[in-house]
Order: sequence, then structure tokens, then C-alpha cells
Amino acid sequence: MNELPKDAIKCLDKGFVRLVDSMGGDDAIVQSARVSYGKGTSKVSQDRGLIRYLMRHRHTTPFEMVEFKFHCKMPIFVARQWVRHRTANINEYSLRYSEARDEFYYPDPDNIEFQSALNKQGRMGEVDSELKQKVQRYFKEISERSFEIYSELNEAGVARELARAVLPVNLYTEWYWKNDLHNLLHFIGLRSDGHAQYEIRVFSDAMASFVKEVAPFAWEAYQDYVVKGMRFSKIEQNLLERKLPDRVIDDIQEDVAYQLTASLHANKPRSDEDLFPLYKDQGGSDSLDDFNLKWSSGEIDTGNVRELREFKSKIETLRQS
Amino acid sequence: MNELPKDAIKCLDKGFVRLVDSMGGDDAIVQSARVSYGKGTSKVSQDRGLIRYLMRHRHTTPFEMVEFKFHCKMPIFVARQWVRHRTANINEYSLRYSEARDEFYYPDPDNIEFQSALNKQGRMGEVDSELKQKVQRYFKEISERSFEIYSELNEAGVARELARAVLPVNLYTEWYWKNDLHNLLHFIGLRSDGHAQYEIRVFSDAMASFVKEVAPFAWEAYQDYVVKGMRFSKIEQNLLERKLPDRVIDDIQEDVAYQLTASLHANKPRSDEDLFPLYKDQGGSDSLDDFNLKWSSGEIDTGNVRELREFKSKIETLRQS
Amino acid sequence: MNELPKDAIKCLDKGFVRLVDSMGGDDAIVQSARVSYGKGTSKVSQDRGLIRYLMRHRHTTPFEMVEFKFHCKMPIFVARQWVRHRTANINEYSLRYSEARDEFYYPDPDNIEFQSALNKQGRMGEVDSELKQKVQRYFKEISERSFEIYSELNEAGVARELARAVLPVNLYTEWYWKNDLHNLLHFIGLRSDGHAQYEIRVFSDAMASFVKEVAPFAWEAYQDYVVKGMRFSKIEQNLLERKLPDRVIDDIQEDVAYQLTASLHANKPRSDEDLFPLYKDQGGSDSLDDFNLKWSSGEIDTGNVRELREFKSKIETLRQS
Amino acid sequence: MNELPKDAIKCLDKGFVRLVDSMGGDDAIVQSARVSYGKGTSKVSQDRGLIRYLMRHRHTTPFEMVEFKFHCKMPIFVARQWVRHRTANINEYSLRYSEARDEFYYPDPDNIEFQSALNKQGRMGEVDSELKQKVQRYFKEISERSFEIYSELNEAGVARELARAVLPVNLYTEWYWKNDLHNLLHFIGLRSDGHAQYEIRVFSDAMASFVKEVAPFAWEAYQDYVVKGMRFSKIEQNLLERKLPDRVIDDIQEDVAYQLTASLHANKPRSDEDLFPLYKDQGGSDSLDDFNLKWSSGEIDTGNVRELREFKSKIETLRQS
Repeated sequence: MNELPKDAIKCLDKGFVRLVDSMGGDDAIVQSARVSYGKGTSKVSQDRGLIRYLMRHRHTTPFEMVEFKFHCKMPIFVARQWVRHRTANINEYSLRYSEARDEFYYPDPDNIEFQSALNKQGRMGEVDSELKQKVQRYFKEISERSFEIYSELNEAGVARELARAVLPVNLYTEWYWKNDLHNLLHFIGLRSDGHAQYEIRVFSDAMASFVKEVAPFAWEAYQDYVVKGMRFSKIEQNLLERKLPDRVIDDIQEDVAYQLTASLHANKPRSDEDLFPLYKDQGGSDSLDDFNLKWSSGEIDTGNVRELREFKSKIETLRQS
Repeated sequence: MNELPKDAIKCLDKGFVRLVDSMGGDDAIVQSARVSYGKGTSKVSQDRGLIRYLMRHRHTTPFEMVEFKFHCKMPIFVARQWVRHRTANINEYSLRYSEARDEFYYPDPDNIEFQSALNKQGRMGEVDSELKQKVQRYFKEISERSFEIYSELNEAGVARELARAVLPVNLYTEWYWKNDLHNLLHFIGLRSDGHAQYEIRVFSDAMASFVKEVAPFAWEAYQDYVVKGMRFSKIEQNLLERKLPDRVIDDIQEDVAYQLTASLHANKPRSDEDLFPLYKDQGGSDSLDDFNLKWSSGEIDTGNVRELREFKSKIETLRQS
Repeated sequence: MNELPKDAIKCLDKGFVRLVDSMGGDDAIVQSARVSYGKGTSKVSQDRGLIRYLMRHRHTTPFEMVEFKFHCKMPIFVARQWVRHRTANINEYSLRYSEARDEFYYPDPDNIEFQSALNKQGRMGEVDSELKQKVQRYFKEISERSFEIYSELNEAGVARELARAVLPVNLYTEWYWKNDLHNLLHFIGLRSDGHAQYEIRVFSDAMASFVKEVAPFAWEAYQDYVVKGMRFSKIEQNLLERKLPDRVIDDIQEDVAYQLTASLHANKPRSDEDLFPLYKDQGGSDSLDDFNLKWSSGEIDTGNVRELREFKSKIETLRQS
Repeated sequence: MNELPKDAIKCLDKGFVRLVDSMGGDDAIVQSARVSYGKGTSKVSQDRGLIRYLMRHRHTTPFEMVEFKFHCKMPIFVARQWVRHRTANINEYSLRYSEARDEFYYPDPDNIEFQSALNKQGRMGEVDSELKQKVQRYFKEISERSFEIYSELNEAGVARELARAVLPVNLYTEWYWKNDLHNLLHFIGLRSDGHAQYEIRVFSDAMASFVKEVAPFAWEAYQDYVVKGMRFSKIEQNLLERKLPDRVIDDIQEDVAYQLTASLHANKPRSDEDLFPLYKDQGGSDSLDDFNLKWSSGEIDTGNVRELREFKSKIETLRQS
């Protein structure tokens, strides 16, 4: 197992992530969602739109209908964080059944950093090269010496399950790991985040690249609504609304009315003169002339009608709350 | 079982929620969080602050250390939504073992509404009293007739597990239901929401009132950071920042600098002349005079320093993204 | 959805089970087991043997590596039992989003039986045809009347989520249901059992026939070691050993020694004169003549050596415990 | 944390298990079971009998209604096996947030054994004292040197999350661990078994002693029906029935008829002359004289009627299958 499998993404110095199998993709999400909503969703004609709607409204069960199975190899201290995601199925290389292999993680100099003062669980700031060399020397020393001891005890016939207790947590282990897309995205959301430890982030990013291939719409929606979404607490909203003048909110509302109009127009082709009445229906307050001016200037993006409506009411809430 | 148990909260016409037992509360959350963070949290001296920090940063496992067990009675169609929360443990009254009881849900006139046109899964708009009476008459008709049939078949010796198949989903059932606080809050977040069906919301609200009593800090934090939090998607943020002028963002930032200053002052008493340098450190741009003016005007709320810092950097992101 | 999908197995009068997708089979079980046991299993060369070993020793995780997704349609009272298997992922047809369809379960006369006196949750004993007809008439009456009422309320615009509360639990619903093989086998073990209600057994049996096709070795092993296994409690063992004379146990032991010998012989061809010493090693007490007599009479089956050894020590325990 | 908490059970050289809290006991099992079975169980008047019935028939959900929370301290390699039980809630001491403590597991000489030749995952056979001393010396060497290195890197300011990677898996960690009784018993069943690694067995046994105190009937039933139960596979049954002469089975059946009679007598006091007809009803074939002889000789144990009946039909199956 010393060589990288062909279809694997290399992670750290000796680890990897390999997609062994998967079941379903964007299509399977749509298929199972349609069973829930029955004929009622006949109008939501586009898969991408439906997937984005599901993600936006946290309808998570259709995403559970897609399954991924990975073969991964990583240091024990990474496996220890990973295993906390409890919905996954795991078969790990056992040091009770099998002999340990001489494979340890040695950090690349670029990833040896100081303890962050701000973030109790993070690292931050360049370490000088002398200290870096010391770290690497120490990793090598402990790894080699512990493996030497392990091997000697093993050859002397000491029970493997006991002898392995001298091995450090930078030893590589490997497993098959299977999970559904909803829980996999949750994993990636937490472990590809800037607060996650670098060494697990690498593996999470590798799995992410497989997800992106297998279920591109779901991946995009997850990015837009969850990962890059920004949440304001009730307290922050209080601060926000005290400083967000009504005229700014009016401007935003107006802009959304434009977007909505343009979206309606784009979805169902009609002549330009039908647009202004539609715009008025959406609550737009510009005059016909101003409207036409903005329309022909092309500053209006077309988008998802439903989403714009939701944004409009969200902004409205900000003023009234 | 026709009478309401003494310690129960009545729900709908014949249902209830009763807290049978619970294990731990705010104290248990803090206790288990401290084992994770060890000595490192010695400075976070207050339980409420720690609980709010955990909730804000989605550190959910300490909330799993608190457990609730409820005895509930509700219509079958409510039980069918409820049971989808899969982490709970359930023991339900069995119509294979035991005879059905003549208890059916009859909706109160106030809760008979029209199908919502906007929300495919909701109700909306006042129904006239004639139609309301018809609904009630029909519920009564089906319930009584089906129970008559059930009873006759039951007396004739037909297998209970088969005879019960004629009973409608407004029949009451009951169960013991046990869950941990993290998953219970998730349940309440979904089922006490305005989009949930009225008939389950009533039960969710009843459970919420017990949670509030048993773990008041956790409840408050959940409200502030999750339920009443507002999330903006990446798309919405794009719209927002296009219309949020820099001067507005500056104003907000400035305000936060004041809040931070005041918080630091409140947490660690010092003389007023120490405040201005602190304020400068936080990025405030007012002159000393202006600062003192605002300070003495009392328009500054004191709050949690860490939360204010986080808000400041969030707002900063809004400008730069 | 009134017609049966082509690839579906019909269940009851209007229901079905359809295998939508699956991931892996016997091969995937072996593949993931080998990662756990590493080089150590190189000698267990045959997949079937390894799968049987895993099942026998309750090493369940490799069976979790195989995934099944079904599309099913069944009465609500069946769905209510089914949903209690909590590891599955489900997307169900929603009566909040969509209109109910006029499809109800009417039991076949053959399946209308009396309540069992012995088994509080079962049925037993032929019902006369007059009562059978009455049951069918009543099912029809309630189903048709409730659907009439539902339709009228629905047309009058009453909220669907409320109107549906008059529908009986013999109404058909449908869902996508996904689970891993380990948990699926557990489901089948409980729901294809004679104590399960007839109406869910039909669906369980249909799923079983798909499992048998996708993972035949796993299916066979599950039957041999779990479903058709027989468990004796400590109390029953006490009774058993009091009445099981030593000579019977001796006979059984002797027989196993033969089986073992024959197995060793079959696995590793050797000349007949090597057999008797092997037999002695296994604890056989017959003389050479007697041994040869039995051997040439062909009354010895060859089997799995490991399994025979385990049986031998189990029988031994029975004597000594 | 170097001292043993007062209420803790010491495990290995520096670890412990401590029951922090629990919710419910035997009473809670009975309470929730009664809601499932309703009035139907009114006759099962004794809690112990009901609990044993539930366990015997694998009605597991009532056991899920009891919850235990433990505080445990154990070596990392033990924690790695432990964490695979996925229904538990865990808060573990974090080496990202907090500094490692100088506490390592040094095996007691008695527990240093050779690798088992028969059992790939076990240990077996006395090791000579010279090798034992070497093992201990090596454990000490690696533990001390790795901690020295860790401390030096930590003081130099290297990120804790990286520096900890040199620490071996015999380092102690600790956590809060919460689980329901059903899953806890399953854990104990696997981890207190002879095939489990000695080092985790110690912890499992400690938890078992707490379970025994909190829910004694459930514990006893689990021992009788699961742990000490003996399961025969279909293959083994085939072998068994070929060698179990009919007369032996007859004897066993006869014996059970006596037991049943005595049980009925004991449960519902009646005069001795009522016994013989009862005995005949149970299928006994002795004459009245023989029956009275055995009865007065006192060789009959009274027991649970239901259980005896089940055993009788099981033995019957053995003959007919």
C-alpha cells in the first residue's frame, strides 16, 4: 500500500482519498424530491432550480438519497477527528489483526506554524527555519524509534494489540468510509472551513472535488446557501437596523423589484411594454421613464424569481423588526 | 387516559405533552464543554457566556449531554411528521396489542383555513362559518362511523391489526419520546416555525416551554443565534453590498467600536480617561471630543466583547467580499 | 401512479416494491473487510467463506458498505411500522404539498383472520365468508366516503394539510427508502418473521428477493446464522444439559471429529492413511477399524473446518457449564 | 486530574469510569413498555417478568428509555475502539484547545502476553519476565521521550494541534460519554466479551457494574438471554438433531411439562389434586402415580410459565425441523 492508487488524490505526504463508488447524483436528488412533492412540483421544471430551492429551505432528506464511498489513508490524529461524524459507515485497518506499516506523517515545512494567540485551536504565523528543522527532526526521531520498538516486540511475539500502543498518532491508518451527500456536505462544511486543522482540511477538500464532479448542482447550491451564506444573530440585526437608514432599504427593495421583473420577463418571453406593469406589481416605485432607462442600460440581472421574492421579504423584515 | 395528567400541557382538543424526566440542564452543558476545552476555558468564567459561545459557533456536542423524556398524545397525522426526527427513542401505543380508543381530533373553528396559494404546504385566509361547520360535521361523521365499524369488527373477533386499518389519521395515539437537547432544539426550530403545520406546532411549543424551564440559557442562546438569526445567501449578499454605501458600513463599524470600548470598560473597571485609547485600538475614528460626547450621552450599550468583535469582522467582510 | 412500474414487485392489491439503485454487493463486503483485516486474511481465500465468517461472528460493519434504494407504495398503517427503522433515509409523498389519490388497501379474503388468543399482536383462524364480506364492505364504505369528503373539502379550498385528516390509514402512500445491507437484513429479519403483520411481511419479502439477487452470499449467510439460527437462553441451557446425557454429547463430539477430518481431507488432498492421525488430533476416539468403516460408508459430510471447530467447542461448553 | 475522583472505579493504571448521571432504571423500562402494550399487559403484573419478556423477544425500544452518562479516562488506543459505538454522545478532551498531560498507560506485567496463534486479534500465553521488563522499559522510553519533545515544541510556541502528533496512543485522554441502556448493553456485550482487548474490557466491566446497580432486572435479563445465551446456526442444528435421539427430546419435553405444572401451581395457589389435569394439558405422559412421586420428591423447579412454554416449542422444533 506504499504506492498511490491511480485514481486517488494525494493528501499530505503519504495519504490519499479515492472515490470507490457512488450511488446517484443531482438526478437522484430531484427524483426523490419529486416523490415527496408529487404533481405539485410540475411547474418547477428545472432540476437546478429545484435543487437550489431544496438547499435554500433546508429540505435535507433528498440529499440523503445520494451515497459516496471513499477509500482514505490518513494519520491517526486526523482519523480521530474524522470519526466523530457518526452517520458514516467505516471499516478501518486493524492493528489487532494486522501488523502496523512503517508510514508516518512528516509535516511539510510550510505547514509548521505557531500556536495562534487569538484562536485557541488554531495555528498562525511563520516559524523560523531552525525551529522547523527541529520539528521535522523530532517527528522523524519518535516515528523511527517507536517503529523500531514495535517491530522488535512484534518479532519477539508480544501481542500486536499491545505492542502497537507505543506508536504515535502521526502513524498512517486507512479505511473505507461511506456516507450520504447531506452528511458529507456537512462534514465538508466543517472540515474545509478555515477553523479546521490543516491536516484534515486537505482530505475534506479532496472529497469535495469528487462531490463537485458527481453532483455539481448540489455542490454549487451548498456553496451559495450554506458555506458562503452569512448569518446575522438577533443581536447583530439589532445593531444593523439601527444603522441601516430607510433610504438604503428602499434602494435595495427597488433594485429587487427590477430583478424580479426581469426574471419574469426572461422566464416567459413577452414584449418589453409588458414589463412595467409587472414591475409595478412587484412593488417598484420608479417612473416608467426611469424604469426603461435602467432596463435598457442592462444593469438588471435576471435570476430566480422565487429567490428574489424571498430576499425582498427578508429585507422588509429588517426594517420592521 | 381520557383525563389530562396533572403535570401535562394540553395540546389541541384531547392531546397533551408531559415532561416525564430529564437529565441535566445548563450546568451539564457547561460541565461537558469544560472537559473538551480543559484548562483552556478557565477564563470564560460565566456559564451563560460559555453556552452562548458554544451555540454561536455551532459546537453542538455539549448540548447532546442533556436529555428529555416526554409523554405525548397527538393525532396520527401529527405523529407521522414527528417520527421523522430519527435520533429520538420512541415507545408508542400499539393498535396490534391493544384496542383503539374512541378519541379523535376535531379542529377548532379558528384553525380551519383555506389552502394557501403562495405556500403549497400551508393554510391561509378566513373560511366562512358555513364551510367551517361542514368541516366539523364531516370530521365527526367519519370518526364516529369508522369507530363504530372498528368496534363491530373487533367484537366479532377480527384481528385488531387489520380492523384498525379503517381508522382515520385524526385518531389520537400516544407515546413516550426521548431525545437530547441538541436534537430537541432542532425539532423545535423546525416545528415551531411558521411554516410548520399548526397541529404539530402546538406540541412543539409545549415542549419548548419545558426546555425553557430546564435549560434557560441554552434556550435563550438558541433563540438569539438560530431561530431569530437571519441568513443571507451569497447571492443576497451580492445584492446587499451593491446597495450598501461605504458610509453606512463606516457608521456601523464606528458604532461597534463604541460598543467594544464600553464592554471592555464594563468588564474591567477603569477610569474614563483610559477609554479613548481603547476606542482607538478598536479602530474608532472619532475625535476625543466627539467620543466623549457620545460616551456621556449614554447611547452605547454594553455587551459581549467577543461577539462584537465577530460582528465587526463580519461587517468588514461585507464591504470587501 | 395507478399502474405498476415495469420493474416492480406487486405487493398487496395496489402496492409495490421497486429496486431503484444499489451500490456494491458481496464483492463490496469482502473489499471493505479486507481493509480491516489487511494482509492477515490472505489465507481466507474465498469470498463466500469470508462473508460467512463475518456474519457468524457478528462483524457487521462490512455489510454496511452495501447500499439499497427502493421505491415503495404501501398503506399508511404499514408505513407507520416501517418508519421505525431509523437508519433509513426516506422521502415520502406529502399530503401537505400534494393531493391525496383515491387508492386504498382492501384486504384479500384469504388474509382476513381472527385475533389470535395466544399472541396478543397476531391473527389466527379462518373467518367465515359472511364476516369476510362484511369486512370488505366496511373497508370500501369508509374508504369511499372519506375520499368523497376529502375531495369536497379540497375543492371548497380547505387547506390540504387539514382535509387529509379524515383519511383512514388504509390509504396508500409512497416513498423512496434507502438503507445499508446490514440494517436492511435486520429489517427483513424482523418483518419477514412469522410474528410480523402480514401486510408488512409482503413488502419485506419483496425487498428480500432483491437482496438475494444483489448479494447472494450475504443473504445465504444471514439465513443460516441469524434467521434460522436457534438461540437457547441460560435457563434453557440449564434444562437442556440436565437431560442431555453425556453419551449423547460424546456422540455429537465424535461426529464432529469426523466432519473435521473429512473437511481437512477435502481442503488439502492427501492419501487416506493420513486421515486417521488427523482424526485423532481432533479428539476422535474410535479405533482405526471403526473409523475406516465409517469413512468408507460415506456418512461423513465435508464442511467448513473453522465452523466445525466452533461447534465442537460450543458442545463442549454445554457439558461443562 | 491526576487524582482519582471519589466516586470513580479505577481502570488500568491511571484511568477510571465514573457515573455522572442517569435517567430512569428498571421502572422506566416498564413504564414505557406499558404505553406500547396498553391495557393488554395488565396481567403481566410483575416488572421483572415484563422486563425478561421484553429482553427475550428483543423488544429493545423500552431499554432505550434509560440513559447513562459517564466520565471516563482511558488510553487513546482504547478510545479509538470505544468511539466506534456511534449512538453515544461524546465530549472529549481536545489537544487542539488544551495542553497534553503527562499521563501514559504502562501495562501491568500480568497483562503482557504473546500474540495468539489461533485468534488473530488476541493474546495468549505467559511471557517470560525478561521480555516483560523490556516491554515496560520501551513503553516508558517512548512515552517520556515523546512528552519531552512535545513539551519543548509547545514551549517554543509550535501549534499544539501539530505538536501533539508525536504523542503515542498509550497517552491518556478523557471524555463524557452518554448512551441509552439498550446500546450500552450492546457495548458491554461486545467489549466485556473474552474476544475484546483486555484494556477496553476493564472499562466495559466498570460500566457494567454501574448498570447492574441502576437497572438490576434489565442487567440480569441481558445476562440470561443475550450474553450467556447460546446460539446454534442452521448447520449446527442439522448436526445436533442427527445425534439427539427422540427419547432424549421426549425426556426434555416431559421435564418441561413438570416445570410448567409447578409454575402454574406456584403462580395461582390450588390444591394438589388440581395438578395432574394441568400436567396432562401440558402434554405430560406419566401416570398419576409417577407424577405424584416426582412431585413430592421436589425435583421440580418452578419458573416462568411463558418461558417454559417457549422452550417446549423450541425443543419440539428441533425434532421436526
